Amino acid sequence: MSAINPPERLLMGPGPSTVPARVLRALGAPTVGHLDPYYLELMDETRGFLRTLFRTTNDMTLAVSGTGSAGMEASVVNLVERGDEVIVAIAGVFGGRMVDVASRAGATVHTIEAPWGETIEPAQVRDAFESHPAAKWLGIVHAETSTGAHQPLEEISRITHDAGALLLVDAVTSLGGVDLRVDDWAIDACYSGTQKCLSCPPGLSPLTFSPAALEAMDRRTTPVASWYLDVSMLRQYWGEARVYHHTAPINMTYALHEAARAVIEEGLDACHARHRFHHRALRAGLEAIGLEYIPSRSLPVLNAIKVPAGIDEAAVRKGLLSRHGIEIGAGLGPFKGVAWRVGLMGHTARERNVLTFLAALETELGCVSRDFAAGRAISAAAAVYRDGDSA
Amino acid sequence: MSAINPPERLLMGPGPSTVPARVLRALGAPTVGHLDPYYLELMDETRGFLRTLFRTTNDMTLAVSGTGSAGMEASVVNLVERGDEVIVAIAGVFGGRMVDVASRAGATVHTIEAPWGETIEPAQVRDAFESHPAAKWLGIVHAETSTGAHQPLEEISRITHDAGALLLVDAVTSLGGVDLRVDDWAIDACYSGTQKCLSCPPGLSPLTFSPAALEAMDRRTTPVASWYLDVSMLRQYWGEARVYHHTAPINMTYALHEAARAVIEEGLDACHARHRFHHRALRAGLEAIGLEYIPSRSLPVLNAIKVPAGIDEAAVRKGLLSRHGIEIGAGLGPFKGVAWRVGLMGHTARERNVLTFLAALETELGCVSRDFAAGRAISAAAAVYRDGDSA
Repeated sequence: MSAINPPERLLMGPGPSTVPARVLRALGAPTVGHLDPYYLELMDETRGFLRTLFRTTNDMTLAVSGTGSAGMEASVVNLVERGDEVIVAIAGVFGGRMVDVASRAGATVHTIEAPWGETIEPAQVRDAFESHPAAKWLGIVHAETSTGAHQPLEEISRITHDAGALLLVDAVTSLGGVDLRVDDWAIDACYSGTQKCLSCPPGLSPLTFSPAALEAMDRRTTPVASWYLDVSMLRQYWGEARVYHHTAPINMTYALHEAARAVIEEGLDACHARHRFHHRALRAGLEAIGLEYIPSRSLPVLNAIKVPAGIDEAAVRKGLLSRHGIEIGAGLGPFKGVAWRVGLMGHTARERNVLTFLAALETELGCVSRDFAAGRAISAAAAVYRDGDSA
Repeated sequence: MSAINPPERLLMGPGPSTVPARVLRALGAPTVGHLDPYYLELMDETRGFLRTLFRTTNDMTLAVSGTGSAGMEASVVNLVERGDEVIVAIAGVFGGRMVDVASRAGATVHTIEAPWGETIEPAQVRDAFESHPAAKWLGIVHAETSTGAHQPLEEISRITHDAGALLLVDAVTSLGGVDLRVDDWAIDACYSGTQKCLSCPPGLSPLTFSPAALEAMDRRTTPVASWYLDVSMLRQYWGEARVYHHTAPINMTYALHEAARAVIEEGLDACHARHRFHHRALRAGLEAIGLEYIPSRSLPVLNAIKVPAGIDEAAVRKGLLSRHGIEIGAGLGPFKGVAWRVGLMGHTARERNVLTFLAALETELGCVSRDFAAGRAISAAAAVYRDGDSA
């Protein structure tokens, strides 16, 4: 029974990312009531910040009182009535999860698939709507955390709307890290998590719904399966009526407010550019020692790389954690044992972290393989940093 | 766009309660990964603490990644398949909420009702099971936050089990504040919140299931409506398998661990006695100035009192908040405008807070009613404190 005293970690896995001190300080500020005038003002300001991050004017923008998966469930269950047809694109764990969530809510789910590490092609979406013209929405993952693949959305959005359907997007790993334009790309439901590119601890899920999505909810003839995630009630709590629904995670809202404020201070475009720049340096370093990226369209924020033949991937991860305090992610599903997932999300995406990780990785690889010559990764990354962002 | 800087509040409403500095410090400790060995150990220790608080040996004891209402939803949806009959007791907001949650999950809900402020009589439960012998469980609220009524459970538990049904108990406002014995009272599903008598910020819901409840889940032939709250998957994440399900709210677990540790250090019996003692002083003070308690069986931790005739209840609450920084609760539903709810939960249940509140209340009542003579409440409370806990 000892007091909380966590080890010092550099979080370079698939999330959570390293949380900056200013966000931890906000998190630990004294709790006020969930109906306190101060908290109500904070909710409003947080909604405004989330609109900026999502690049939307959607009134219905808020933070769900749960982690990213609760945001997925909120998006799906509010837009499904028993017997509805929907289309879900699967190219990793999170597309598969969406199928499960939608099926439990009573949807008939048609799927489009791409191999793990690849992205969905617009033609696949077109074909799916031709086969299933009654589909109410298409669900797709913008940044597939399990594979590191970066899914383009603009053409898919046009096809979806041409088919008269709504577009539901998982932006858990993209919000704040890569370009995401809810209004310009006509996304109707979009959810994220706090612990990825916003560098806030996990516990809330930013969520936005377009007016068209709300109209679809208003047309429902049966109640939403989940009371906790029923948007018709959440709207009244987060809106002007302030109708008590549940007690929001007050201190988590403090932290999200501060984390969003930090991103907005930096500027969304600058923040995306910073992620791309440090990804270039990381990639140069990894490729210099022969490591290969798996996805053909890699996210800057999540780098899925092949474990070299003959290397005990778990031993390397364990060495990074226990000797260097650096967390990176293992592969899931078909990537188990064959991939590492290296996150450069939010506050983690900095020069010092890229160099620390590459140096530690070279050292670990040198430990497990005697003929590995350390220094090449740092040399390649250093060249990127020497030439700078504008190169 | 300013930094988080909440006003200083003494939280004496229906929750959240005032969070002690040690819990805020734990909350703001650096975030580690949700699969970090440190965090996994912390989850195990937290489960052990929750077993102590619930007075249970149930293996399936954990914290749901959402607030108390998510715990209610988790308890209900895992124990409901479409068409199941259940019985729910309603004597306030939260019994009503349980009906809503169970109906959405597809249950046929039979209800037992008691007037607001009263408790359910065992005979009502016996009658309900005679009328509905197929009912799978009885759901009942131990401490009704909307009315301050304290529901006895032992006889009701016997009747429920004699009828071959399971007992599902809402302990959101009782855990840590009043006697609650999950094993002795044979409760099959019990959930709580963190922001009441544990004095931790809101964001998690302690939950425990008996082996009989797990067997009922194992007999399901259809999936649980909610993916996020599906206990068959949560068991694997919190259990030895550590199968990734969702990213737990890591820092909230820090805070819950510390809050539970504080209660266990004090001792559960001592903690309950402290709540009763300060309730006696508060009650003596309130009754000395003619205020009346609404419930015949009042909780020590939540004091629902009638607003005296001719008093503008909102003006008094507003005065307490703006001039004294003290939050108390308004009435909900039929109690709106006619009741105040004064919480003495967890860290809030201390002599200084009782006296501060009574002094501030007397001052406010003196402001709104010129013929009100202040000082009598303090005098009566002071007498209780003079005679001490053993009197």
